Amino acid sequence: MIHLNPVFIPGPTNIPESLRKAVDIPTMDHRSPGFADIIHPALDGVKKVLKTKAGEAFVFPATGTGGWETAITNTLSPGDKVLACRNGMFSHKWIDMCQRYGLVVEQVTVNWGEGIPVDRFAEILAADKGHEIKAVLATHNETATGVTSDVAGIRRAMDAAGHPALFFVDGVSSIGSMDFRMDDWGVDVAVTGSQKGFMLPPGLAITGFSQKALAAVQSAKLPRCFFDIRDMQAGYAANGFPYTPPVGLLNGLKASCDMLLGEGLENVFARHARIAEGVRRAVSAWGMELCAVSPDLYSNSVSAVRAPEGFDAGRIVAQALNTYGVAFGGGLGDVAGKVFRIGHLGLITDVMTLSGLATAEMAMADLGLPVELGSGVAAAQAHYRETAAPAQKAAA
Amino acid sequence: MIHLNPVFIPGPTNIPESLRKAVDIPTMDHRSPGFADIIHPALDGVKKVLKTKAGEAFVFPATGTGGWETAITNTLSPGDKVLACRNGMFSHKWIDMCQRYGLVVEQVTVNWGEGIPVDRFAEILAADKGHEIKAVLATHNETATGVTSDVAGIRRAMDAAGHPALFFVDGVSSIGSMDFRMDDWGVDVAVTGSQKGFMLPPGLAITGFSQKALAAVQSAKLPRCFFDIRDMQAGYAANGFPYTPPVGLLNGLKASCDMLLGEGLENVFARHARIAEGVRRAVSAWGMELCAVSPDLYSNSVSAVRAPEGFDAGRIVAQALNTYGVAFGGGLGDVAGKVFRIGHLGLITDVMTLSGLATAEMAMADLGLPVELGSGVAAAQAHYRETAAPAQKAAA
Amino acid sequence: MIHLNPVFIPGPTNIPESLRKAVDIPTMDHRSPGFADIIHPALDGVKKVLKTKAGEAFVFPATGTGGWETAITNTLSPGDKVLACRNGMFSHKWIDMCQRYGLVVEQVTVNWGEGIPVDRFAEILAADKGHEIKAVLATHNETATGVTSDVAGIRRAMDAAGHPALFFVDGVSSIGSMDFRMDDWGVDVAVTGSQKGFMLPPGLAITGFSQKALAAVQSAKLPRCFFDIRDMQAGYAANGFPYTPPVGLLNGLKASCDMLLGEGLENVFARHARIAEGVRRAVSAWGMELCAVSPDLYSNSVSAVRAPEGFDAGRIVAQALNTYGVAFGGGLGDVAGKVFRIGHLGLITDVMTLSGLATAEMAMADLGLPVELGSGVAAAQAHYRETAAPAQKAAA
Amino acid sequence: MIHLNPVFIPGPTNIPESLRKAVDIPTMDHRSPGFADIIHPALDGVKKVLKTKAGEAFVFPATGTGGWETAITNTLSPGDKVLACRNGMFSHKWIDMCQRYGLVVEQVTVNWGEGIPVDRFAEILAADKGHEIKAVLATHNETATGVTSDVAGIRRAMDAAGHPALFFVDGVSSIGSMDFRMDDWGVDVAVTGSQKGFMLPPGLAITGFSQKALAAVQSAKLPRCFFDIRDMQAGYAANGFPYTPPVGLLNGLKASCDMLLGEGLENVFARHARIAEGVRRAVSAWGMELCAVSPDLYSNSVSAVRAPEGFDAGRIVAQALNTYGVAFGGGLGDVAGKVFRIGHLGLITDVMTLSGLATAEMAMADLGLPVELGSGVAAAQAHYRETAAPAQKAAA
Repeated sequence: MIHLNPVFIPGPTNIPESLRKAVDIPTMDHRSPGFADIIHPALDGVKKVLKTKAGEAFVFPATGTGGWETAITNTLSPGDKVLACRNGMFSHKWIDMCQRYGLVVEQVTVNWGEGIPVDRFAEILAADKGHEIKAVLATHNETATGVTSDVAGIRRAMDAAGHPALFFVDGVSSIGSMDFRMDDWGVDVAVTGSQKGFMLPPGLAITGFSQKALAAVQSAKLPRCFFDIRDMQAGYAANGFPYTPPVGLLNGLKASCDMLLGEGLENVFARHARIAEGVRRAVSAWGMELCAVSPDLYSNSVSAVRAPEGFDAGRIVAQALNTYGVAFGGGLGDVAGKVFRIGHLGLITDVMTLSGLATAEMAMADLGLPVELGSGVAAAQAHYRETAAPAQKAAA
Repeated sequence: MIHLNPVFIPGPTNIPESLRKAVDIPTMDHRSPGFADIIHPALDGVKKVLKTKAGEAFVFPATGTGGWETAITNTLSPGDKVLACRNGMFSHKWIDMCQRYGLVVEQVTVNWGEGIPVDRFAEILAADKGHEIKAVLATHNETATGVTSDVAGIRRAMDAAGHPALFFVDGVSSIGSMDFRMDDWGVDVAVTGSQKGFMLPPGLAITGFSQKALAAVQSAKLPRCFFDIRDMQAGYAANGFPYTPPVGLLNGLKASCDMLLGEGLENVFARHARIAEGVRRAVSAWGMELCAVSPDLYSNSVSAVRAPEGFDAGRIVAQALNTYGVAFGGGLGDVAGKVFRIGHLGLITDVMTLSGLATAEMAMADLGLPVELGSGVAAAQAHYRETAAPAQKAAA
Repeated sequence: MIHLNPVFIPGPTNIPESLRKAVDIPTMDHRSPGFADIIHPALDGVKKVLKTKAGEAFVFPATGTGGWETAITNTLSPGDKVLACRNGMFSHKWIDMCQRYGLVVEQVTVNWGEGIPVDRFAEILAADKGHEIKAVLATHNETATGVTSDVAGIRRAMDAAGHPALFFVDGVSSIGSMDFRMDDWGVDVAVTGSQKGFMLPPGLAITGFSQKALAAVQSAKLPRCFFDIRDMQAGYAANGFPYTPPVGLLNGLKASCDMLLGEGLENVFARHARIAEGVRRAVSAWGMELCAVSPDLYSNSVSAVRAPEGFDAGRIVAQALNTYGVAFGGGLGDVAGKVFRIGHLGLITDVMTLSGLATAEMAMADLGLPVELGSGVAAAQAHYRETAAPAQKAAA
Repeated sequence: MIHLNPVFIPGPTNIPESLRKAVDIPTMDHRSPGFADIIHPALDGVKKVLKTKAGEAFVFPATGTGGWETAITNTLSPGDKVLACRNGMFSHKWIDMCQRYGLVVEQVTVNWGEGIPVDRFAEILAADKGHEIKAVLATHNETATGVTSDVAGIRRAMDAAGHPALFFVDGVSSIGSMDFRMDDWGVDVAVTGSQKGFMLPPGLAITGFSQKALAAVQSAKLPRCFFDIRDMQAGYAANGFPYTPPVGLLNGLKASCDMLLGEGLENVFARHARIAEGVRRAVSAWGMELCAVSPDLYSNSVSAVRAPEGFDAGRIVAQALNTYGVAFGGGLGDVAGKVFRIGHLGLITDVMTLSGLATAEMAMADLGLPVELGSGVAAAQAHYRETAAPAQKAAA
């Protein structure tokens, strides 16, 4: 049976009706002038969402993984050293990609659930007097663990060490949902996808390059073609694309940026924080803990909830899906079976979120876990009431 | 802001994706043979949903109100007497229509929240030795009060009295959601609309006529043209329509019937009963009461909840809408300000319903009503867990 | 096989993408304030399209036939006399409706293909010293014959006779496509539907009532309920509707009015005239004749083409549909088998029209008619080139 | 103004309504079992369209360019030699990609408009006794010139030379439109995209790998990650994807394969051949020539038409777009300004094609070219009539 239930995976998000309609358009000629009215506003919008004035945006028909590849292949050469922290499945995969491309990864490993250790990065950078490290990689929000790391802190560490490395940030599950400041934080390449904060179907790798990153392109020796931003630059300059562009998705991207910027990015972030806090209060009411080990790491786009020791968290996900038709995220990699994930990004409302929390409660109770029905819902309700729009107060 | 929240009004329902797509089609020539492949399966499907083999179905581009008009104008003459009970806004309006058409209404009035008093009908029919009553009108499910009346009982009363009157049933908010048996119950004209159990957008009056009702058409003297079923019959016989048909909606009706019959009507009814019972348990947990005065009257498509004495129920509806973006139904007519209504018909799931209950709790708490957050949700969760599909048991 | 070919029926039209999307929306609560933001702009837009400032617009979930019924039942009483001309299937049907409602029709009959004889009307009105005629009915554009009658002329005849009758105009296939001026022409009730000039799916009867018509409502004795404009007035005044409104279609109507008024009505009319003239030149190049007997009667929304004497025009329609997947209109009533109709209303382009003309040529040639392939297309091309937008001249 | 005109670019095609709906779906969890019901049928369908039983299909969120990259990076190593012919913009670009990836390209250059010279390939392969050539690249249908090369012939040449090189074929604008036989022709990697024969929006690179190509993957030393088919294989095996899959497009691909296979590939090819021949007859009637230098090279998916010597063909494209709202393809690379291209692939009908031909005529006449209006249309009409479905004959 086909449900009308929302999804609670950490992306792709539930898609707003207006964005579905912006994507689903009849074929237009991408070599006609009409394409300029889509691609340029879309790129301008992306720059505003990334908070970059100095940088440039590049959008590929791909996914965030393609965005990672865009970042490294356009700026680095075989044998280059990069610094990265492995603290979840997505940082793990980006490191793996670097290695497959012949980069040398100085890898900092922490337990999954922890953030990037800024002090460790600071030490390593300070010790790298020869500036062998060509790029620092950071996963802003680890989707696998619901951990948000301190990107601004890493930049400060780099600056403190006077280190000239490029700074690449995976903002796949943060950009458009949480505070992200490409220029302020000195991010050289920012990477995201269409299916998270932009609330679109998957199919776009969205990147921002700083002028410093753009300068690195000329000397970068890693081979690339599909993801070569020089072709993309030339295409945009001619109001075009180096190959057939996904016009519908790009039109959706334009509409998504209009929607986010129309609401105001700070409002968007506050909305995500409010929804996320309700989820966290529910988790607390259940007597459970997040995978993220401390409150400063809590993600506003996804919460990874630890199942009781010895209990396979995947059963909760399966029960919710099979019995109630609701999709949550499972655990990945080091935390497979240990956590289940509640995605709460995009245009998800308090009301929708409560249905997800209620479902998690039913699924856990079905499986014999000691969760009181309605307890998490009540905790979240209390938070949502307190923080609801002003209309509420007037009504009371 | 545009929400993705479901609606909890008692129709129009949340529309399944597949039905939206069946309705939203490019223009096709309604005078081409392709139209036959839509209209005939749609009419056949309607007959199966109405559970009539002997009768015929007629579908008009209108609403349930147009269906009422179809029933009376095609079968009755000015001055004819009809028997009807006024027990809610919709029965009230149908009576009003009869009077405007010059019919004489023998009106049985009960408090709103009560069902049609079968015994009173029995007495009146038995007393009508001269058979002046030409038609008996019954509103199967009073959408305004969440009261389901005993249609089969009325038929028994008619038979017991040996009364030859026609029997018209408004099944607008019952057909496709609750048990309805046109042939078994001797219903002569059944009336519904597209936007309730059929889960489509509004825009269709859907009717079934028994052979007895069809026979009455020839002598009926009330004027009609748009709603004249003789034109409709002639149109269908020629694979057409007497005027421009709403092809998209009719294609949706075909798809809707396929969906309902594919699931199985008894399964559809059981699904509605399960969802409704969860809502009722929540209402009970809140310490509140339904408008329907006894359990045998409880509707499985809509629950009208009484606000505490002296409290304007409309404020709950306004608070839910303005603060949480969720639509409930308000009170109408005699119960305006006294009840708010939770619609739970169509493809609404347990999960969606829980979000509605959670919203009602927040709205009521905001307004100072003594409702414990999560209490109704928990009661409904317990019911939904107990009655969930077998997958649940296996998982436990 | 499902085609992407346009339709060439005289309504429903090919639906612009943006209007399909405006109609296809998720369920919204029609009792919520959001409905006011749809219904009022839609009604205001309709008034502008009708060119009435003094009148009021009423929109019903029905079709143009329901609009006819709205006109007569809200203003007239049984036995009232009306004046009408039977010059095509749709005027014929409206007369038939009047008779079924017990009105006495003073019927002027002309050959189909002729317009309403204004001089005959003038004589009859002048002779009606007792003002027994309560309403004059005119079909502005006979969709069955492609004949546009002189509505302004009829008004002048009424004024010349000092006749107080109401003036009802069926503008189903003219309004939104051809010049129509409700106030200037003293039209008391204007009637149309959603699926013609408004380019929407069928499902709305759209009417305009003058103040004089509104005044007549109180004394009108014909029974009505579904189509009673008093209920509609009360509904609108409360930001609502007397029954469940077709919210999607009304939202489409709002968008359609925005589109028409944004383009400018005079531009819309000129666009239709340009397309129609190309069709007429093609017909002429084929050596064929229109049903409309003189150029002053030629319709800009539909052309009815006479088949050669003795040749069944229906075969052309069938051949085009069965072999090429293109829908034209067939002949109706007195001209059944004698004409086929090419609809050219709505957002149809010159390019689309050429494909219709090319198809008609193929179908006729297949059937052995002496039509030179490409001849009509060439004639239309010449006209479209001459009258194309200024860009063309610059290019040449 | 937004048009309903079809596009006549050589891809993306006009999208059938059913495929638009298959793509435009609400978010589903790509880690849920439901995804298996999309990805596996889609891959199976692709294999059938490619006519491979022995090979495997891999689909990436990318474009045909990504498919080229998939082919070479998964099978070759830096410094490997490949044999390719440059006979149009797309073969040129693939060669360029090879060079950027450090491959050595043995390049055969012919005039654009010619096919791949099979005899030249045969000589080179025969001379390559040391089997330094690791792969032979062929562009089956040069979209830039409307030239279809003899893929089977190249395979025969390889076999005759006993050459073990891999055989890569770009079938972007042939697969799903023209005869293509992966197994029969010994194609090791076949490449296409979603927006051509599959009639979907752009966004998918679609590839088929033979067992021989799969075996080459292990030793291939070119770096790759996003396009690494090993990750894709592992993903499919687990009913998943190595990163976020474009679920809607994949669902569309499943539906597209069902549509193509339901019609029958041979019927699909015959349909394309019929439409293309009509276009060619029109071109001939205009007294113009195709870019393709001989009939055996004529493409059934796109026709590149040579403008008169000295006349900028781009003006025709601009005139059609700006004045008539119709998109044709312009000339690219060596034939920029020399040809304009009429795309006729996908579900385009004879009727739609005629509107494109009529538009081209108007545009050329506007620009002073000696084209008789209706002449090309008439030639195409004659062909379409002769070859129309049997219904036509019956009618005549």
